[in-house]
Amino acid sequence: MKLYEALAAEVEKSIRAGLLIAGDRLPSVRHTCKTRAMSASTVFQAYYLLEARGLIRARERAGYFVSRAPVSKVPEPQQPSRPRDESTPVDVSELVFEFLAATRQRSATALGSPFPSPLLFPAERLGRSLSAATKRLDPWSSVDGLSPGAEALRRQISLRYLADGMAIGPDEIVVTNGALEALNLCLATVTRPGDAVVVECPTFYGALQALERMGLRAIQVPTHPREGVDLTALEHAIERHQPKACWVMTNFQNPLGSLMPVDRKKQLVELLARHQLPMIEDDVYGELFFGAARPPPAKAFDKEGLVMHCSSFSKSLAPGYRIGWAAPGRFTSAVARQKLTFSLSASVPAQLALAHYLKRGAFDKHLRRLRTTLAAQQAALVAALGRYFPGGTMATRPAGGYFLWVEMPRHVDALQIHREAVAQKICAAPGHMFSASRDFQHCLRLNYGHPWDTRMEQAVETLGKLVRRNAGRH
Amino acid sequence: MKLYEALAAEVEKSIRAGLLIAGDRLPSVRHTCKTRAMSASTVFQAYYLLEARGLIRARERAGYFVSRAPVSKVPEPQQPSRPRDESTPVDVSELVFEFLAATRQRSATALGSPFPSPLLFPAERLGRSLSAATKRLDPWSSVDGLSPGAEALRRQISLRYLADGMAIGPDEIVVTNGALEALNLCLATVTRPGDAVVVECPTFYGALQALERMGLRAIQVPTHPREGVDLTALEHAIERHQPKACWVMTNFQNPLGSLMPVDRKKQLVELLARHQLPMIEDDVYGELFFGAARPPPAKAFDKEGLVMHCSSFSKSLAPGYRIGWAAPGRFTSAVARQKLTFSLSASVPAQLALAHYLKRGAFDKHLRRLRTTLAAQQAALVAALGRYFPGGTMATRPAGGYFLWVEMPRHVDALQIHREAVAQKICAAPGHMFSASRDFQHCLRLNYGHPWDTRMEQAVETLGKLVRRNAGRH
Repeated sequence: MKLYEALAAEVEKSIRAGLLIAGDRLPSVRHTCKTRAMSASTVFQAYYLLEARGLIRARERAGYFVSRAPVSKVPEPQQPSRPRDESTPVDVSELVFEFLAATRQRSATALGSPFPSPLLFPAERLGRSLSAATKRLDPWSSVDGLSPGAEALRRQISLRYLADGMAIGPDEIVVTNGALEALNLCLATVTRPGDAVVVECPTFYGALQALERMGLRAIQVPTHPREGVDLTALEHAIERHQPKACWVMTNFQNPLGSLMPVDRKKQLVELLARHQLPMIEDDVYGELFFGAARPPPAKAFDKEGLVMHCSSFSKSLAPGYRIGWAAPGRFTSAVARQKLTFSLSASVPAQLALAHYLKRGAFDKHLRRLRTTLAAQQAALVAALGRYFPGGTMATRPAGGYFLWVEMPRHVDALQIHREAVAQKICAAPGHMFSASRDFQHCLRLNYGHPWDTRMEQAVETLGKLVRRNAGRH
Repeated sequence: MKLYEALAAEVEKSIRAGLLIAGDRLPSVRHTCKTRAMSASTVFQAYYLLEARGLIRARERAGYFVSRAPVSKVPEPQQPSRPRDESTPVDVSELVFEFLAATRQRSATALGSPFPSPLLFPAERLGRSLSAATKRLDPWSSVDGLSPGAEALRRQISLRYLADGMAIGPDEIVVTNGALEALNLCLATVTRPGDAVVVECPTFYGALQALERMGLRAIQVPTHPREGVDLTALEHAIERHQPKACWVMTNFQNPLGSLMPVDRKKQLVELLARHQLPMIEDDVYGELFFGAARPPPAKAFDKEGLVMHCSSFSKSLAPGYRIGWAAPGRFTSAVARQKLTFSLSASVPAQLALAHYLKRGAFDKHLRRLRTTLAAQQAALVAALGRYFPGGTMATRPAGGYFLWVEMPRHVDALQIHREAVAQKICAAPGHMFSASRDFQHCLRLNYGHPWDTRMEQAVETLGKLVRRNAGRH
């Protein structure tokens, strides 16, 4: 742990213990430098981290204050899931489609949406890149941009990997129609109908739908709400069920928001190597970290080319452009062929626009703003949960992304709440969708990727009422 | 047959019979009006049709002249294919990938390319539509444009169907990442691994690759080089092999260029209804007709919703944008779900740009120019084949699209020729790729979708030399 992280952890402990409460002013940076013999930049980094976590707020010329959200009112869940040790066919699609149809209404459905608010992205600037990139468009780019994708874009993606300490060349990247296609193509590359695939529990419903569509069986392994998949259980599942792949989100897992510690990621990659098991790593939220640096994906430690790293610009920069990619290691050429025979290539103007935007270097500035915004919105949502949800409710505090996971009292029926909420033009993702076994029936995934305003506050209030009423029925 | 068609047929007959030869001046329009008692517009339509077929050429202020291409030198093939009556697994992908890799070089590979020249498309005007559509972009369009696709675009596609006499509403259209994705999603919707699917013989290698990737078996049915699939054989195959779907190109089939007559299309649809067999109709070349009107797809006669009509803008307007669609009849909602779980949606800026372009009404003018260009280029290619290919060579004369099919003397090895040609930076698609049974080893698919110039002429000359040498070896 670095010095600033240690300081941040200490202050966080004081806040959670109630030693510092909402509105308290923190010791000034200058003061802390003196008393702790630290540099100003160390103290600023610590305070910046706490601010990103929503625990403190800066007021101009007045210093840092503990945020109004009394975070401790809604505790964090601490227990990993306990799915049955078996491989099962998957049948969740109907439920997911019902849910997705409900989220298509714009009005007040932000809490349940799978997407962040489009208002958080530089649409205008991207539009300018689109114009610039297509104005002097070489007509042949429509051919050159075909799979594995426009070289200019693959180069930019490669440069970002390099900036994060990963050597992945343009030739190891396959551009796809969003991350979802990348994930699907990678899965199709290493499996055949009837095979078993390891997934987290709970997991992204898109993974379950992919398994269902391809006729694959799911092996669900216990997953911790803060630290991700349980490696002992994973190894046991591999030995017992002989899966052909695993599908894991190491960073800000959907729906839990869990972040696998670096050591665990290393152990995970070692485990894959031991069993020669391919892993599909869904890392679409990796850029949305609230801490000081991007958490590395498992791919960063993969020496054998077993990790097929998938990501996109849809959550970080350009929703709707549908540009994602896979870095599939030893499977690169097989995935490129899947892409070619399935949909030829990703949209060339969108690829060139993103390459143009990335080259101009505005991405990091945009990301810094986006991360701070998301962290503040998480704090606001957690505070609202404390105000409106019944006692016994727990919620994760992801260190990135825009989803958190709410565990309500055991007997509350999240699907019922979802349906009642939809009738009031509110939406929340019921836990049922996130496992092949349809567990987590008392859980909700909530989205804090939308600007916090009174309408959001009221939506949480209404949702809280529905939860209390449902809880009271039993 | 309409009056102008009758006149055109008569003139065509005279040309093919040698009564009119290259360079001959046709009777003037005024003269023909008098002698035949026809309106000027009828005569003009007839001459326009002949011009579109590459048989005659207008010279400014001088009238119409028989084209230099002595068309009769390379006869048209007249025999349908005779595949074995069996269902077989498919294994052509390696060969296709080898071929596709060779076509990625820009230089002089136009004859073998799967794509038309990007120079034939209004890239600049599309770029302006892209700018205009994204400048005033509602940020929420990134959500609204998700599957089944942006409403503005689905409405424009629906209007084009309507203009062709087909009532297909925006709600019956699923926008996809190009036609290839549409075809794949439709196929996945109605089949399971191990199922059998009817394909033409020869057929588009993309269909074979789709079958191969999905673990489906191919039933190949005899197909006529001019009139398409043999319906008696098709019905027999359905009864014997119980396929779950058929995949047919009714208009300008790839690779033959065959055009199924309207009556046959009607019979085909009746046959589907009798057997309740879903059909995937690949109609990507439908807009590229050289005659007076768009040939209807089989979908136009489908009352039961069994035909899943797939097309795109990639060959007609916007290569590289990767915008296609399916109109899947009774399977619409299932296909939309496949699309949602496979790749969420097509690129939204590209969708909106096309909607913007289509709304401004410039598409038809562009298409008229494109069709005339393609027809003239076909005539030039056929003439060059006559000059350079050995006797015994036959070639189809498609009434649209940009591919024709060459049958060389039986013992010529097209794959060998392809490989020798690649070494000289020339490319031609060997017949081997177009059937599950790897027949058609003496055939080539040639592309006339690129501007005709001395380089093209030389490429055909070189190819002709390779063919002669290969023929001489036996």
